[in-house]
Amino acid sequence: MKKPSLDFWFDFASTYSYPAAMRIASLAETSCVTVRWRPFMLGPIFKAQGWATSPFNLYPAKGRNMWRDLERVCAALDLPFTKPDPFPQNSLLAARAALVALAGNWGESYCRAIYRAEFGKGRSIEKGDAIGEILKSLGQEDHAVLERAQSTEIKLQLREQTEEAQRLGIFGSPSFVTAGGELFWGNDRLEAALDWARR
Amino acid sequence: MKKPSLDFWFDFASTYSYPAAMRIASLAETSCVTVRWRPFMLGPIFKAQGWATSPFNLYPAKGRNMWRDLERVCAALDLPFTKPDPFPQNSLLAARAALVALAGNWGESYCRAIYRAEFGKGRSIEKGDAIGEILKSLGQEDHAVLERAQSTEIKLQLREQTEEAQRLGIFGSPSFVTAGGELFWGNDRLEAALDWARR
Repeated sequence: MKKPSLDFWFDFASTYSYPAAMRIASLAETSCVTVRWRPFMLGPIFKAQGWATSPFNLYPAKGRNMWRDLERVCAALDLPFTKPDPFPQNSLLAARAALVALAGNWGESYCRAIYRAEFGKGRSIEKGDAIGEILKSLGQEDHAVLERAQSTEIKLQLREQTEEAQRLGIFGSPSFVTAGGELFWGNDRLEAALDWARR
Repeated sequence: MKKPSLDFWFDFASTYSYPAAMRIASLAETSCVTVRWRPFMLGPIFKAQGWATSPFNLYPAKGRNMWRDLERVCAALDLPFTKPDPFPQNSLLAARAALVALAGNWGESYCRAIYRAEFGKGRSIEKGDAIGEILKSLGQEDHAVLERAQSTEIKLQLREQTEEAQRLGIFGSPSFVTAGGELFWGNDRLEAALDWARR
């Protein structure tokens, strides 16, 4: 029998996508579900609903609670946590490089390494040199990957993937979508999404 | 030793407060935590951040996901679920009556009965006759309670309680606040809030 699958939609700028990215592989393995990692850009989706930045910046009480809550969530999972500055990070280049990485067999390691640098260590993931360092630490040719990440083909692929996310009704990250189109939003729904994928 | 306590802040108009209200008593009993039920009005807090109605109405993709998610959450808990129309319900009178009820020993039953009518059966909880029916079903004198609910004293108490919520940094419902001031937001954080209260 074919293993059930689940699409994991994420933006590297998103806070709660960090614990989700760190948890999903082992939970999916236990559940016998195949996960497809699907980077996309939240920015255009936020802009479409009139937000110029993260709602966590637009609504300070919501933002304060999120940082404190994320700290508690990470502590409970034994994940290091440091708030990146500025927040949100511009995740465009990191997302493009993720598409290159995910076409190879080292995509998930790359995605986890980006999240770990950004929210575990509070480092910038915006520029080529920061991403290049992570690529090197994974044994990849940083210049070649970054050049490919900025090709027209990859730029277009990320744009199309973002449009697909929007068509699926995705409005936040992380989101999980089953083969049947059932949408789950948020790190808190990862287990429910995996359960649904197996139904 | 004194039992630890947790404040449960809720607005009757709030969707995810329904499963929280139905779950909290038995979970708190298992955790040996005393819960104080604290109705407040989200409206003034939403208005302060520029929202004239529920964010679930302002952001349709978020709203669609919430209704579907709430349906799944209720199904998993074996709670009946029907969407009330209109949404959000005007919860002012129900909240005022809750203050009367909570001053007696039947407050929690009243609050659960309001939530069950609204989100279990999809009934209106806006008007005196709907609330009166619920009061009668609980063996209460509906006219006397509703008259008291509209007294200056109760009106003022609800206003002060809403201001207190705002001072505590509350921006959504349900929220849980420990004696030490630790804030948790959302039905998904009920267990974590109870754990924290016992630390």
